[in-house]
Amino acid sequence: MAHINLNNDLPGIRGLMEYRPETANPLNALAEMLLRNVDNTLSRGERELIGTYVSYLNDCFFCQNVHGALAGHYLNCDINQIDKIKNDFNTADLSSKMKSLLAIAASVQKGGKMVSEEQILVAKLEDATDKEIHDTVLIAAAFCMFNRYVDGLGTTAPLDRQFYINRAPQRAEDGYLILR
Amino acid sequence: MAHINLNNDLPGIRGLMEYRPETANPLNALAEMLLRNVDNTLSRGERELIGTYVSYLNDCFFCQNVHGALAGHYLNCDINQIDKIKNDFNTADLSSKMKSLLAIAASVQKGGKMVSEEQILVAKLEDATDKEIHDTVLIAAAFCMFNRYVDGLGTTAPLDRQFYINRAPQRAEDGYLILR
Repeated sequence: MAHINLNNDLPGIRGLMEYRPETANPLNALAEMLLRNVDNTLSRGERELIGTYVSYLNDCFFCQNVHGALAGHYLNCDINQIDKIKNDFNTADLSSKMKSLLAIAASVQKGGKMVSEEQILVAKLEDATDKEIHDTVLIAAAFCMFNRYVDGLGTTAPLDRQFYINRAPQRAEDGYLILR
Repeated sequence: MAHINLNNDLPGIRGLMEYRPETANPLNALAEMLLRNVDNTLSRGERELIGTYVSYLNDCFFCQNVHGALAGHYLNCDINQIDKIKNDFNTADLSSKMKSLLAIAASVQKGGKMVSEEQILVAKLEDATDKEIHDTVLIAAAFCMFNRYVDGLGTTAPLDRQFYINRAPQRAEDGYLILR
């Protein structure tokens, strides 16, 4: 049971957004722009993967499963491959650029000042653009918010990971501005 | 110098928002709703204080000074009093309810799961409403994002704290949707 009375039994952030639609609107607008907007050289799958990885580092069960399932949907890989990336992205089947961006995201999760000049240099040498680095940092920072929002209010989440996999195609179709 | 070329020399988050207005819009809409919307039983000063305290815990110089100056402006107290609250809110001249909410915010800063049932119970015993607890958690979580965004991209900030104090009245008048 959540720390406050949400007057609904929706899981994770969905219950919070139903409870307080006034703050849900800009939160969803942010997610839509960061994770789905088509004017972006990072694919939707790559952006969801950054969010998944940060949610994993923050130990947020709900977020890492929602976004892990979406990353798997977009990237055409199964949950085992997503888990492998979470456990050790350096040995996973990812581009060097993506690995350099996940390293930056991991530092952001620890704290903004943990991002090193060297990490930025490596990403640039792997042809990451300034905008890609910007979006990586902001996606990682945003998930540090979403994860704390979800867990800080003690929300509940389905334990069966298949629940999230089943929902991913519909969410991928709807995006973050249509809630159901 | 920031980690990426922002094509402007605005300090802190302002340079990032000028660089990427598409993500600035929902970020500012979130700040406006959380920190300024009048339909809230927490005053603007109290909400800015929560953001200030979390920014202090995250060691984000720009955010703790921008929002500390705004908190001081709204609460009619000077920067020394704000500093005293940051250093030890328990001995500061604040209501017991506000202290219980700052304790929750401090846990959110560490991680969502750090918020304890006991902290929630104490806040409720101090007559904090569910919505006040919700907003406290979301404000604290949002500043964990803003702080990481500002420092994760290595932005610069004026070192003279008077700069922030001088700007606070205009920001209080403009809110977060008018940028200048």
